[in-house]
Formats: sequence, C-alpha cells, structure tokens
Amino acid sequence: MINAGIIGASGYTGGELLRLLVMHPEVEISYVTSERYVGEYVHRLHPNLKGLLQMKFSSRKTVDLCNCDVIFTATPHGSSMSYVPDLIKECDIKVIDLSADFRLKNPEKYDEYYNRTHPNPQLLSEAVYGIAELHREDIKKARIVACPGCLAASATISLAPIFKELADHIDLKRVIVDSKIGSSAAGATPSTATHHPHRAGIVRPYKPTGHRHTAEIEQELQEVSGKPVEVFMTPHAVDIVRGILSTSHVFLDGEIEISDNEIWKIYRNFYRDEPFIRFIRDKKGLYRYPNPKNVIGTNYADIGFDIESKGIKRIVVFSAIDNLVKGAAGAAVQNLNLMFGIEETTALTFPGLHP
Amino acid sequence: MINAGIIGASGYTGGELLRLLVMHPEVEISYVTSERYVGEYVHRLHPNLKGLLQMKFSSRKTVDLCNCDVIFTATPHGSSMSYVPDLIKECDIKVIDLSADFRLKNPEKYDEYYNRTHPNPQLLSEAVYGIAELHREDIKKARIVACPGCLAASATISLAPIFKELADHIDLKRVIVDSKIGSSAAGATPSTATHHPHRAGIVRPYKPTGHRHTAEIEQELQEVSGKPVEVFMTPHAVDIVRGILSTSHVFLDGEIEISDNEIWKIYRNFYRDEPFIRFIRDKKGLYRYPNPKNVIGTNYADIGFDIESKGIKRIVVFSAIDNLVKGAAGAAVQNLNLMFGIEETTALTFPGLHP
Amino acid sequence: MINAGIIGASGYTGGELLRLLVMHPEVEISYVTSERYVGEYVHRLHPNLKGLLQMKFSSRKTVDLCNCDVIFTATPHGSSMSYVPDLIKECDIKVIDLSADFRLKNPEKYDEYYNRTHPNPQLLSEAVYGIAELHREDIKKARIVACPGCLAASATISLAPIFKELADHIDLKRVIVDSKIGSSAAGATPSTATHHPHRAGIVRPYKPTGHRHTAEIEQELQEVSGKPVEVFMTPHAVDIVRGILSTSHVFLDGEIEISDNEIWKIYRNFYRDEPFIRFIRDKKGLYRYPNPKNVIGTNYADIGFDIESKGIKRIVVFSAIDNLVKGAAGAAVQNLNLMFGIEETTALTFPGLHP
Amino acid sequence: MINAGIIGASGYTGGELLRLLVMHPEVEISYVTSERYVGEYVHRLHPNLKGLLQMKFSSRKTVDLCNCDVIFTATPHGSSMSYVPDLIKECDIKVIDLSADFRLKNPEKYDEYYNRTHPNPQLLSEAVYGIAELHREDIKKARIVACPGCLAASATISLAPIFKELADHIDLKRVIVDSKIGSSAAGATPSTATHHPHRAGIVRPYKPTGHRHTAEIEQELQEVSGKPVEVFMTPHAVDIVRGILSTSHVFLDGEIEISDNEIWKIYRNFYRDEPFIRFIRDKKGLYRYPNPKNVIGTNYADIGFDIESKGIKRIVVFSAIDNLVKGAAGAAVQNLNLMFGIEETTALTFPGLHP
Repeated sequence: MINAGIIGASGYTGGELLRLLVMHPEVEISYVTSERYVGEYVHRLHPNLKGLLQMKFSSRKTVDLCNCDVIFTATPHGSSMSYVPDLIKECDIKVIDLSADFRLKNPEKYDEYYNRTHPNPQLLSEAVYGIAELHREDIKKARIVACPGCLAASATISLAPIFKELADHIDLKRVIVDSKIGSSAAGATPSTATHHPHRAGIVRPYKPTGHRHTAEIEQELQEVSGKPVEVFMTPHAVDIVRGILSTSHVFLDGEIEISDNEIWKIYRNFYRDEPFIRFIRDKKGLYRYPNPKNVIGTNYADIGFDIESKGIKRIVVFSAIDNLVKGAAGAAVQNLNLMFGIEETTALTFPGLHP
Repeated sequence: MINAGIIGASGYTGGELLRLLVMHPEVEISYVTSERYVGEYVHRLHPNLKGLLQMKFSSRKTVDLCNCDVIFTATPHGSSMSYVPDLIKECDIKVIDLSADFRLKNPEKYDEYYNRTHPNPQLLSEAVYGIAELHREDIKKARIVACPGCLAASATISLAPIFKELADHIDLKRVIVDSKIGSSAAGATPSTATHHPHRAGIVRPYKPTGHRHTAEIEQELQEVSGKPVEVFMTPHAVDIVRGILSTSHVFLDGEIEISDNEIWKIYRNFYRDEPFIRFIRDKKGLYRYPNPKNVIGTNYADIGFDIESKGIKRIVVFSAIDNLVKGAAGAAVQNLNLMFGIEETTALTFPGLHP
Repeated sequence: MINAGIIGASGYTGGELLRLLVMHPEVEISYVTSERYVGEYVHRLHPNLKGLLQMKFSSRKTVDLCNCDVIFTATPHGSSMSYVPDLIKECDIKVIDLSADFRLKNPEKYDEYYNRTHPNPQLLSEAVYGIAELHREDIKKARIVACPGCLAASATISLAPIFKELADHIDLKRVIVDSKIGSSAAGATPSTATHHPHRAGIVRPYKPTGHRHTAEIEQELQEVSGKPVEVFMTPHAVDIVRGILSTSHVFLDGEIEISDNEIWKIYRNFYRDEPFIRFIRDKKGLYRYPNPKNVIGTNYADIGFDIESKGIKRIVVFSAIDNLVKGAAGAAVQNLNLMFGIEETTALTFPGLHP
Repeated sequence: MINAGIIGASGYTGGELLRLLVMHPEVEISYVTSERYVGEYVHRLHPNLKGLLQMKFSSRKTVDLCNCDVIFTATPHGSSMSYVPDLIKECDIKVIDLSADFRLKNPEKYDEYYNRTHPNPQLLSEAVYGIAELHREDIKKARIVACPGCLAASATISLAPIFKELADHIDLKRVIVDSKIGSSAAGATPSTATHHPHRAGIVRPYKPTGHRHTAEIEQELQEVSGKPVEVFMTPHAVDIVRGILSTSHVFLDGEIEISDNEIWKIYRNFYRDEPFIRFIRDKKGLYRYPNPKNVIGTNYADIGFDIESKGIKRIVVFSAIDNLVKGAAGAAVQNLNLMFGIEETTALTFPGLHP
C-alpha cells in the first residue's frame, strides 16, 4: 500500500482527491491536514464522504510527513514552495503539487505572472508538468510533479496535437482561448463574487487579459511546436458549479489545404490509446461537440473541432473537462498511478452521469 | 413631491426600493444611507441603477431625516427599533419599516421569537401590519407601517380568505406551511451557505421548526378567524434567486361538504378588485398553479389551490410572490401609496417576464 | 456471469442501468432494446457511455430474451404487464420491473390509480415490492421484483421506521408528503412543460392531489404499521435535473412524550447496518439536513428529521435520493445483487460529488 | 393612438412585444395572430399578461391588417417575405419585421446563408436595418424595418465604433465573435436540444461555423468601416433563459499606439447621448464588465472592453443584451417610436433587476 498525505485537504481540490483516493485499492490515506479545520471531521466539509472516511483534519506541523510515500499539496499558491524543498531534502518522498508553485519552467515567467521571485528556481526545472498525455515518461521518474492549472489543462490538451503537426501553418501570434468555467474554480471560500444571488444566472468575464494560466499554455505549446507562441485567454464565469469549456480560435495561413479528416487524423495519431481523451464528433444529434456536462466527475478530456474558410482559415477547437478532476485531482491521481507503476486508470473509471 | 429617505439602502431590499422609487412620479429620493458604503456610488452596489440614480450613500447619522416626509427603514432586525422612536418624536414623519421590529402586536411573542425584550412595546400596538389587502384602511392613517416578512406575506395572503370564512371547519391546530425560497432572501452578505458551489442545485431545509415568520402568520390568521391558530412552517432553499412558493396544507373536518367552486368564491369575494392578487386556475396548460417564476419583479401574489378528500379533506393552497417585491419593497411602496393618498398601483405596474 | 437484458434502454432509467451495469463485475449486458432507436449506437443517446459500451439498440421482438438470466424492464407503464407474463412462462428468467405495473398488491387500487383493470392480478401478489430495506428476504427469492416509484421510495423509506414503532401515536389520517423533484423524472421525451425556458427557474406544483405514487406509500406504510394510513402527497418541480427531497409532515398525538434522541434510536434500530441509508443530523454547519445534491449519482437515501411541539406535536421528516438511482436503476441493481446472491453493494459504491 | 397588429404573437418574441406594448401609452393592440392558437386566450401562452391583456389569438387570414397603422411580423424565417409585399402594396401600413427576411442588403448573401433565392430582392434594398444607433434617420422614414438577429445585434453594436474609427489598424480578416446565449433564443417549440434535462448545466457550442447572423455583422461592419470584413462567429448555449454575452476578439496591428482611454473616447463619441447604450467600466467591484444578467428585461446594450499587448495587440470587447428585448422586441418598439415620432424610450424604461 502507498501511504499518502493530503496537505490542505479542506478545499475543493483536497476533497476531490479524497473522493478518488478512498476508492483507490493501492492507496492508504495517512494524513489529511488543514490548518483551519484541525480536529474537525472530514465529512463536515465534504459531506459526500460521510460513512466512507472516518478521519479528522490534522495540522501539517504536527504530523510526520516522512512516513508518507507521497504527499499531495493542495495548498494556496506560494505555500508549497515554502515547505516542499525541506521536505524532499529530509525524506524519501514524492510530491504531487496542485498549486501553481512548480508549473513554470522559466523563473522569469514565474516572476512576471505571480509578482514575486521564486525562491527555488532549481526545483522549477526538476518538477515535471503533470499532463500525462504530454509527459508520461518523465512523470514516471519524477520526484515532483506539478499538476496544471485547470484552464491551462483544458486548452493545452486540446491544442497540442495541431501545434505539433501544423506549427508551420498556424498563426502562432494570434491564438485565442475563450473559456467558460464553473464556480468551483473559485475555491471554497465565500466572497461577494461567489454569493449565489450574484453568481447565479451570469456570464461574467473575469481576468480577461493576462490570466496566469496563459503562461502555462504558452510554455507547453512552445515546447510541442518548437516555436514561440502567444496566447490571448479570456475566461468567463458561467452558471455551473463544475466544468470548463475552452473554445480556442486558431488561424491557419490561407495557403494550406487541409481537410477535416486530416485534422482528425492528427488528433487520433497524437492521442492514440489514451484512456482519458475522447474525440467528440458526430454529424447529428445533441452530442456533436464537447460539453462539460458530460464529463462532470470524470477524468475525461473531450475534444472536438470545426474548421471554417474565408480566405483565412480558422480552426475552432473545443475542450471540455471537469476542472476538479482532469483539471486538478484526477490529473493528480493519474500522475500518482504513473509514479508508482500502477495501472494508469485506477480509481478514475467513473463514467459520468447522463442526464 | 414626497421626499423619501431610504435607511439601509445597500442591501437587496433597499436596492429594490430604489428600483421602484426611481420610477415613481410622486417621490423624490432625498437620502440613501448605508453605514458601510458611505461615499460609494449607489450603482456600484445596484448595477441596474447605473444611469438612473446618480447618488452616493450617506450615513444615517449625518443627514437630517426630518427633511423627509417618509423614511423606509431597511436595516437589520433590532436596528430600527433603536432610532425610529426618537425620530417620530422629533419630526412629523411617516415610517415604513422593512425589518421585523414592529410586526408583532404581542410583546411576549416578540420576546419569544427574537430572544430579546422589545424596548418600545407601545409602538408595537401603534404600528400597522403592512399587508394592504388585510389592513388597507389602517395603513392609510398609519404613522408606522411594518412590512411583513416575505414568508409570512406569502402564506398569510393565501390563507386569510379561508381562515375567515371556514374557520369553523378548518383544523386550526394542524396547519402546515411548506415553503420554497430563493437565495436573495438571505440578504447581500456572503456566507458559506450562500457560496454558489454550495447553494446551486440544492433543495435544503433550513430552520424547519420555529421559524420567526410563523409568529406573524399565526397573528394574522388568528385575527381574521377570531380563533387560536397553530402553524407549522418549514422553508426550503431552492436554486432560484428571487421568489417564494408557499404550499399550505390545511385539513377540513370530514363532515363539511364544499366544492371547488365554493372555495373559489370565497377567494374571489375576499379579494374582489384587489390589483395585486391573481387567481391561477386553469384546467389545462402549463400555468394551472402559481409559480414564482411568473411574478419575478412584480408586486403580484398569485394564489391557487386544490382539494382532496379521503375521509379527511385537505385543501392544498399555493402562493407565489417575489420575496423582494410583494414580500418586501413592493409592499412598502404599495403602503406608501396608501399612506399618501396616491393611486395604489403607482410604480408597481411591471408585468413580469415570460419566459 | 449473469446475462442481463435491458428492455427499453433508451430512456433515462435504462441509461442509468447501463451506467451501473457496465461497471458490474458479475454482469454481462446481452441485449439493449429500444423499439424507437433500433440500430442506433447506445452512446448516441447516453453520451456518458461513449467508449464504454459499444452496442446498438435492438428490438425486443427480434432478440431471444430466454438467453438472459434476468431482464430489466424499463418500458412505459402498461407495457411490461403485456409481455412479462408470457416471458416468465416460457423461460427460466428473473424480472426486475421498473415500471408501475407490478407495484400494487391490491388490484382494485391498481384500477383506481391507473384507470384500467390489471390483466394479471395474480402476478401482483407474486411480485415483491423492491425496497431492499423493507423486503430483503422476499427479494432474494423473488422471480419478479417491482422497483418502487421514485417519489414513493423517498417517502416510504423515510417514514417506515416511525410508522412501525409509533403507529399508535401517529395521526395516520393526516400524513402530508410535500416533495420537490428534478426534471429527469419526467423522462426523456421533450414537451412544453420540460422546455428549458419554461422549466428553468420554476417551483411548480404538479399533480398536487391524487398522485399515483401515493398508493404505493399507503400500501407500504399500512403493511409496516398494521393499520390504515392516508397520505396526502404534493410534488413540486424544481430547477434541478436529478434528485428528490420529500418533506413529510407527521402529527403525533399531544400526549406522547418523546425526545429527539428516542426518535433517532427508532431510525437507527430499524436501519441498523443498512449500506445505503445515511442519517443526516448535525448541530452545526451546512449539512444538518438531507439535501438531494449530496446523493446525485449514488444509491444513498439520506434521512433526517426535526420535531416541534405546540400542543400538537409534528415530526418533519426529510428524505433525499437520486430519483434515477435509489429511485430507479440503483434500486434495481441492488435487487439484482440480492436475487443472485452477490454482495449487495456491488456496482453501487460511487460516493457522490461535492460540490 | 397607433393601431398595431402582431403577426405570430404566440412565440417568445411576440409575447415580449405584447409585454412592452400593453404599457405603451400611444399604442393600441388591434390584432394578435397565431395560426396555431386561434381562439386561445393570449395569457394561456404568456402567463405574465394575465389580467393585462384580455385578447384571444386570431388568424392572420381572417383579420383586416389594413386597419393597422403598423404590423410587427414575428413569424418564422421565410414567412413574412411571402405576405409583406402584398400587404404594403394594398395598404398604407408600416412593417417592423422580426424575422431574417429583410435583414441582408445583398440578395446573394441571402441566398448563400439561407439556401434560397429571395423572391423580393428590391425590398431588401428598401428595408432599413433596425439598429437605431446606426440607422436612426433612415428608420424614421422607413416603410419596412428589419430588426436585427439577436447575436448580430450584440456583436454589431459593440464593434461598430472601433470599426469606424480604427479600420486602418484592425485586422479585418481575423475577427472572432465568441457568444454565449440563453435558451429562449431557440424559440417556444420544444425539442430534444431544449429538453430541460439536456439543456440545464451545459456549455454547448452550436453552429460554430457559418452561423447566419455572421452575414449581418459583416454587412454592418463593412458599411461602417468602408472595407471588407470577415467575421468568425461561434455561439455557445449556456444555462440561462434570456441573455447574450458576445465576446469579440479583435487584433490591432502592432504598430499602433493606443491607450485604454483613447478607445473609451471612441466609444463615447460614437454613442454620445444614446439612451440604451451603457459603458461598463470599473476598476473594482463585481460589475467591471458587461454581464447579461444585469440587462434582463431591459433594452440596454452594455458594452465594455479590455486591451492586451504582446507584440500583436488584442482588444477584447464584451456586449451584453437581452436577446428578446434589445435583440428583438425592444429594438422593434424602439424602431416603432422612431417611425411614428414618439419619444424614443417610450415603453422601454424598465431598469432591470438586481440581484
């Protein structure tokens, strides 16, 4: 059995990790920490775990994390970078980080987007960016895996194939990512913005320029394409709790002749045999394009696209994930499975609900 | 022109009052106070008033309320009872109170339900309970009108006719009011309970026994029936922002023979020519019973019922209102119109939206 | 392996059965029929099954159901009664019926509530009413199990314990069940009532008297209490897709002295060790009472209550289930497990999502 | 008084027109037609009009429309073009068309987007495109006004100012319009796509390339900029009933130096004194950008933007309207007011609700 500690387990990401791990046959949950809720039963924060996990929250400072084989760090940005370096020095332990602390390779980009100097830039280069579909082999060998931001995951997964295969024909300076996202992405702390009377029924842009996840998307698309890429991302809060749909608008130069089928082939080849990538493409019916509703609770990324020509060609790419699963805790468990040599889909087989 | 001051105007009830009063041809808004948002533009809290009301919030303590002909007090429970007594001593002013401070006639009931001794019991007997359909003549002459609680308004309006006419046949000790209510009733202050990820998609009972509005319903039904009445109320939070449906279950003794039509006649006679009472009764179609969706933004109370006999007879009564309008600010404006001899429907004619 | 056929698999109940059965280690899905969608891929109707079930719908008339060990009949009311009698004559097969055809023991009640004479009244007495918590031993031996109506399941499960233990003190003639229910209960066929612009944002009573599920509740509560019981049920459509909250209002005679704790003991004793019954009772926090949101996708029935005394005593009982799981397909799989001697929780362990 | 007939009044656009016109002091509703609901009371389809409009639907074929001063045609696409030409030949009548039949000036574009040859191309050139803010003087003199498509209105109004003033610097071949829209835009006829269990909780792309409203946007932006423009539009169905947010992504050439304030000036100059255009721009608070929730029921178009530079510059423009008001019936009434010399805001002053 793998002994796992969850640091910062009272939030939504922590709760979702627990939901997945209580069903994981190879994992034993050793510690569940929350500085704010020390001594409180876990199910008081996560009511779906009532009867399934009879634990109380501890303080990170009072437990011996070196007893764990792996820790998941679901603490606020800027927190894990303060305790992870010492921890990995002291113990033989793997770290799966769910914050933004180890996602960016380039310390300057970190400084630019997070307005602070990263204290451990060498860990930035060690940490592996936790999209299994792009970095599987590195993840298997990693000591630190940095799970991607939810918006970054949705866009990156859906764009990587064409940025790899069509980099010479894509207008890499004019990439639009227009995302729609649920309220759980704001975390478990109430605010005026998440107050139900204000949050229900809205379509509200937020951080429409300069969103931090942009840096991750650019980093990954540059790696896969081998060229500089500039992404303009605008997220919108919509009236769902879970789920993201990222709609990316990508221009091709007018000269390339490429059919719908050829693009499908690019996607199929790139993601051949991936257990959590589904292609959504139908000529009729309601399910012709990805829709986050169909992936709620699952680790799937549903990808689809359409193409339009008017002199300039546009590919519009759709990517639907559950921000708390494939965009956070599910990716983390998928990475755990890889790091410990377990069947990759373990604990991640929930098929989702309809309707 | 009537000079009106709104005390506590940053909340939802205050904002709704402003929405109605900016369109009221006989009212001039003199003061808009909020201790928390002094100096802030009103439209920053109430975005629908952008361009319509170019005022800033003042402090109640720095404005001379005696300049007003009327003040609306939309402050938290326990607040208006502290400043209204002095105010009406000092100035020739009318008060329309939207808190619970002057609703109950019986000081003991106040103490029981609000866990404190009322400091001005004599004002309790002076204040008129602000349901125009029940107390129109008294409201016209009142100095203080206490607008009803939103749940109380929905249940009382729909039950008064049968409690007047059928008091001898109703089981007055077993009256059930099962209410469904939107999130705006919780007010403008965020909390864990109103955090969108927690509040969306729920059907959640709250305060299922001993709810404070019960005291108002009992008071009014006792007055109209001339007999003691015991009401058991259970509200439920549902995923709407505005609106209440109160479903009341009333038992008749088995011996009475009464038809559907006779009950309708009771309602029609009781509410003859009332501009804001609608009877919802249709044999077919989607709109056979009241539904709060159809009254959002309006001052209507939609009433309907059905009757069922199995030895014991039950009348199930439905009442739909907008908690912020007929359940608060709309009732307040209706009362203003009566108190100042203005056409009762002034500023209250919005017909509602469909769909 | 158990060979299972699902008759009428294109609807929501059929789809939910498939979702559960594709993960069931002891079941092989042999046939999936739908007269309307013959030849269509299952995932075109049930998009969550894409990649998990590569089958097409067949016609019931062209497949040999006698090859199955069990069939689930998820056809409209009045349909399974026409083909099940012949089927069980011809084959050695078990039937788990999800329609209303075999739920009522008393043929006269069937006639009264369904306006037709039941053609096989002897099968009514053979069929076992499929609430495992009440009829487990009979279900194990049954050839036909009739899964309860969703509203009936929610009310019956939550009321049975007190109707058994307190029958002498409950006012059995004045039982109110006030239910709130999601849109999936209306089935997969569009109508004006389920058109999103009409169905969103509503709290709409429907069939507020004489609802068919009342007959089932009365049947079961009479059996458990040993006395005649009269139930008045009023369902309300609310803006959720899945889930039911049934709020039952039960009067006790004034003389009985009974504490909160004694009632809890009654519930705990009655449902000792039941895997799918949870008691929701907390003094603080958001999760003090049942809420259907917390059981979506699960087979749980969450039960809670409160008690109020004013001369007459009222117990208000809350029961939350997912109408498609514990109210339909989950109950069916639980019954299957019992009928075939499989661990009762197999394929039913999904813990639900939060938030 | 102006006598008005509403042709096709049973749909949502027709109902919304009636809601506005019953409050219009200068208009008398003469005829309300619906071929499907002849003889039915209007409030059976439009429950918000109960008590306000005691009319029944007639057939267009049995009423004498020449008695009207103006008709609103809210019939399906392809219908008004069949009866309007004869009507305006026979009577001295003005026509405000809410279908797509007279929106496009170029008959070839009509053929291309609607797959049919327009039978009266000369009426295409006569009809005035009904955005008052762009064509006010022509509307005043028009005999036929073609109200814009709702998506077209939202995008066009928000883009026209910068396409006029910055045409030389905008990348006119790469204009993205990414729209989010409510279910009422699908009309009043139920379908699988609008069935509540399928439509609730979604973010679903539809017609992501080649949407018909694109042709209108291109037509208007070309007129205002004086140059060819190519628009790539992708709408998404989101879980609201009313409302559109169109997010337009517009690229500027890298050389232009332009500040936030200069862009605001362009907007302010272009829409100086417009009663229904609001600029949403705040440095803090919840209401920094347009949000359709704040315009529900109103005739406002709320416009905002942000600018981002990374070599290439992007302006992201937000536009929020109620699809049934500024996107249909409200625009129609605004046009009526202009055509008949009435104060332009008459019957259009509802300020919207918050929350």
